[in-house]
Amino acid sequence: MGKLCSYISIALILVMQNAIFANAEDPDILKDFLVPPSLDPNTITRQYFTFTGFRPLRKANLTGKTTALVTKATIKEFPALEGQGVSVAAIMYPPSGMNLPHIHPRASELLVVLLGILEVGFVDTTNKLFTQTIQAPDMFIFPKGLVHFQVNLRNDSIAYALGVFGGASAGTVSLPGTLFGSGISAEILAKAFKTDANTISKLIDANKLN
Amino acid sequence: MGKLCSYISIALILVMQNAIFANAEDPDILKDFLVPPSLDPNTITRQYFTFTGFRPLRKANLTGKTTALVTKATIKEFPALEGQGVSVAAIMYPPSGMNLPHIHPRASELLVVLLGILEVGFVDTTNKLFTQTIQAPDMFIFPKGLVHFQVNLRNDSIAYALGVFGGASAGTVSLPGTLFGSGISAEILAKAFKTDANTISKLIDANKLN
Amino acid sequence: MGKLCSYISIALILVMQNAIFANAEDPDILKDFLVPPSLDPNTITRQYFTFTGFRPLRKANLTGKTTALVTKATIKEFPALEGQGVSVAAIMYPPSGMNLPHIHPRASELLVVLLGILEVGFVDTTNKLFTQTIQAPDMFIFPKGLVHFQVNLRNDSIAYALGVFGGASAGTVSLPGTLFGSGISAEILAKAFKTDANTISKLIDANKLN
Amino acid sequence: MGKLCSYISIALILVMQNAIFANAEDPDILKDFLVPPSLDPNTITRQYFTFTGFRPLRKANLTGKTTALVTKATIKEFPALEGQGVSVAAIMYPPSGMNLPHIHPRASELLVVLLGILEVGFVDTTNKLFTQTIQAPDMFIFPKGLVHFQVNLRNDSIAYALGVFGGASAGTVSLPGTLFGSGISAEILAKAFKTDANTISKLIDANKLN
Amino acid sequence: MGKLCSYISIALILVMQNAIFANAEDPDILKDFLVPPSLDPNTITRQYFTFTGFRPLRKANLTGKTTALVTKATIKEFPALEGQGVSVAAIMYPPSGMNLPHIHPRASELLVVLLGILEVGFVDTTNKLFTQTIQAPDMFIFPKGLVHFQVNLRNDSIAYALGVFGGASAGTVSLPGTLFGSGISAEILAKAFKTDANTISKLIDANKLN
Amino acid sequence: MGKLCSYISIALILVMQNAIFANAEDPDILKDFLVPPSLDPNTITRQYFTFTGFRPLRKANLTGKTTALVTKATIKEFPALEGQGVSVAAIMYPPSGMNLPHIHPRASELLVVLLGILEVGFVDTTNKLFTQTIQAPDMFIFPKGLVHFQVNLRNDSIAYALGVFGGASAGTVSLPGTLFGSGISAEILAKAFKTDANTISKLIDANKLN
Repeated sequence: MGKLCSYISIALILVMQNAIFANAEDPDILKDFLVPPSLDPNTITRQYFTFTGFRPLRKANLTGKTTALVTKATIKEFPALEGQGVSVAAIMYPPSGMNLPHIHPRASELLVVLLGILEVGFVDTTNKLFTQTIQAPDMFIFPKGLVHFQVNLRNDSIAYALGVFGGASAGTVSLPGTLFGSGISAEILAKAFKTDANTISKLIDANKLN
Repeated sequence: MGKLCSYISIALILVMQNAIFANAEDPDILKDFLVPPSLDPNTITRQYFTFTGFRPLRKANLTGKTTALVTKATIKEFPALEGQGVSVAAIMYPPSGMNLPHIHPRASELLVVLLGILEVGFVDTTNKLFTQTIQAPDMFIFPKGLVHFQVNLRNDSIAYALGVFGGASAGTVSLPGTLFGSGISAEILAKAFKTDANTISKLIDANKLN
Repeated sequence: MGKLCSYISIALILVMQNAIFANAEDPDILKDFLVPPSLDPNTITRQYFTFTGFRPLRKANLTGKTTALVTKATIKEFPALEGQGVSVAAIMYPPSGMNLPHIHPRASELLVVLLGILEVGFVDTTNKLFTQTIQAPDMFIFPKGLVHFQVNLRNDSIAYALGVFGGASAGTVSLPGTLFGSGISAEILAKAFKTDANTISKLIDANKLN
Repeated sequence: MGKLCSYISIALILVMQNAIFANAEDPDILKDFLVPPSLDPNTITRQYFTFTGFRPLRKANLTGKTTALVTKATIKEFPALEGQGVSVAAIMYPPSGMNLPHIHPRASELLVVLLGILEVGFVDTTNKLFTQTIQAPDMFIFPKGLVHFQVNLRNDSIAYALGVFGGASAGTVSLPGTLFGSGISAEILAKAFKTDANTISKLIDANKLN
Repeated sequence: MGKLCSYISIALILVMQNAIFANAEDPDILKDFLVPPSLDPNTITRQYFTFTGFRPLRKANLTGKTTALVTKATIKEFPALEGQGVSVAAIMYPPSGMNLPHIHPRASELLVVLLGILEVGFVDTTNKLFTQTIQAPDMFIFPKGLVHFQVNLRNDSIAYALGVFGGASAGTVSLPGTLFGSGISAEILAKAFKTDANTISKLIDANKLN
Repeated sequence: MGKLCSYISIALILVMQNAIFANAEDPDILKDFLVPPSLDPNTITRQYFTFTGFRPLRKANLTGKTTALVTKATIKEFPALEGQGVSVAAIMYPPSGMNLPHIHPRASELLVVLLGILEVGFVDTTNKLFTQTIQAPDMFIFPKGLVHFQVNLRNDSIAYALGVFGGASAGTVSLPGTLFGSGISAEILAKAFKTDANTISKLIDANKLN
């Protein structure tokens, strides 16, 4: 019977090595790369594969800001990403600044801290909160479709991170704005958040310009 | 040149008919159906493909409830759905009751109203709100990963609907509970919702037991 | 060695909980929702997400019918489903009426019985037949691509069910009609079903108008 | 305006070249190749990637046969195909022999004729029949999930073809056997095929041993 | 405890049978088949599903050739394959001829030897080489994205094989040509291959016309 | 007819906005995140989602190196990435150092330059070379499965970049090593690269220790 158990444990290790790690995947396109119809594929040059949209960040002024400045490179800003299943957002945090609680409906996000120290967190579908303090050069993964946020823990310097997405068009649902700034009626919100009209009115006023 | 234009318009109509409607899909599994390892595939019977978990709803008592009673049939409750890409939730709404704003991270939801009249709504990633009043036998689609909600518009009778999901394990992020009931610090919440500690404290108290 | 076995059994339970139930999925689109080229995305309203095509069923007259009346809400009838991976068919069964043996090439079907009592069945690829008697509010899953059917067991009242599909365009191959009503030559059919020309001729006559 | 039209036609041609042909894909696995848990990945050799199961066909005797001899190389017979999205069946047709009407629920089939001349056909979901006569070295594609068949047009010599599948486990639903040989009740079959009990009884007797 | 182990081993065998072999798949399209915009779907006939492009091979003259003649049937040459996830290449090898080391970025390849004897090989991502000698009617699988090659072992007769791809547009990166014939600078190549400018110059001259 | 053209051009713009950019996607898993069987999901903490493996790079000594130091964070090093469809490699280039020509069989790579100036290039399947000079904070996309490389253009300082992958296990085929260091016979290589045994022998000696 000891042999049986050994056999089982060996088999199990093989299961671990092979089966478990084989069920996530990224689909292919049917060309090397895709080109929008406004471009002639034969005139595509090196520029098409190059993204320079982060350059203005070198001069970004975050003075007076309380929320993060998020600069995206998705298929909208960088069409060559179409079909490649990946995109990036550059995130600059003012001192004590926050990237508001939000959800990406179409991709997970791997956060790479490049400068500073952040408190990050996400809540899973069992309502369990995971928070962490991370600093460069560490990374933290926010699984797809879950509420997450980041806060710059330093009140005297900015922080800088890259959000790396497992999809070319992750989308963003910013929750304060979506809930209190999209026009959902005060009555519905009061009922949803089990509070009074006055509180909801304050929240709508504060978040409506998001 | 008129001919050219005609040719173009015909071609364009063909594009519409063929290309546009061909880029969403549901992947296959490699067996007719999947069976959990605790079951011997050879002993699988008709019961495995049958779900009876909605029966208790016939006696459900919603008296005193303000939020919807959601009974799920996902791969957890109905393992035969594994790999079939579909699941259902039965939703009973008390008079004036609400299915709180929430997100399904892993599937879209097609709501089939079976009884009563509902106000439904969702907010897209451009922060645009779509609301609608629907009643049986109409349906409404909530795209994947977006905030949505439903309210029973009748204050004297229950409503009943089926939430039909394009995935066997849609997951649910209930926003009042996720934001105010998961333990995110009051300080972070006050900053996120641009409000004072007192307001946040009230919201936490109201929503923490979700 | 008892410890080893315990360790293995714990690990195995984890395998069950994690690995097995993680290999089916529904792919994303790159937008919140898709819009046909004939519509301007900026003019999309609540109506686009609403389906009212089941309303005529309230006045449906099944008198004299022997087969089920199937009303579909797929991407053809409800374009907002494009990319959402889900669709629905409303099925009304006359007394003793049948939904003929058929296959959906592009999705599994979860049948939700809303009224009455049905005999349902499917045959897997090992030629094993699974039949079941189900009634409201129970459900039954027909795995993708397999032959299945339903019969109203009551000869004095109609039955009503929803077919819920894990795909936005399941497609239907109705077998009596496909085999005997599509024009396959009588000679080929006689050979295929190992019978005489006379029998095939009768079957063609009976099923050609499907 | 002529310029506009020219611009449009050029753009449209680009749409044709790029968009249309980019929406089908095959997903990746997360390893170079998968290995069943009963094998140690480190002991995998060249044999694992080699299939020799077609060798017995060189001595196959089809005398007295009326239906095709189908020898499969799917993940069951050739485990290295797991995750590679492709499989093959070798099909030998006796003189005038048929590969009975059937459906593959999980893959399309590209038929490569190697010897002889075949009549082939499939029926789409609009019940439209496409038939063709093909001979070596031509090919014919049977789209996924549709009823199809092949017949050897020569009554004095065998034919030989390869069925090439866009999936590693296509599955087969042989329709005469599934419908009349799986135990579906005669009463249901008579109703389904709109015929009498006697005819069904004959069909069951003829097809039950499939 | 013996019972526990038995239970575990049974469960494990079920894991092997069910879980492992269920995580690779081929996605669906939303129609039976796709049609390019230049064609009217209603005028599609049997010819659309038929490929005759291998006919010229019957007269192919390989005299004086040292590399394989590869004739492809992908979505480019055979548009009906669009969305069906499969394609084929007919490969003719002159005596001692080689199909040069190459990679298919978008599909695995199952090689079916129809005539002759080949030496085949591939290198996995751990740099492990697998070589094999195969002859008709055997098959060999080259996993997706890995370097592979074939050589006709006979110096006095041709060989013939079919490359069967788990995708409709596998793509080919021929390595001698890609590395030494695409214009990568000699300086970079010398550094990459840790050799001198003279050697690189010779390799560029030999491979640039690929 | 001018109107017709206008209509067409508007429709075409909508095609561009909707159809073209909707056909690449990343599949979902059926849980928020996956956990290897060796871990109990209930004991998962913040550490599981955190990656600290880039810390040693702060002290990395590239003196004497000529090729890039690539530190990966894939599912092997960071199991929480399983099912999230994204991974990262930190790449440090010594002065004039190169990341050798290679292919990632299972993901595209988006290169984010963080420090220095690089010459980058890739070759598509039509053998067309695209090269570019990029510096921080620009990015460059290498489509999936294509040969690509990077060289540090400065001979007096290091460069630093992140390779961001649209998949959790991209895999790497390093071409000098795969071709000349994996044991492919000198005879086959001489034939493949159309050169003499002596040249191949030199290349094998130079690259075999990769």
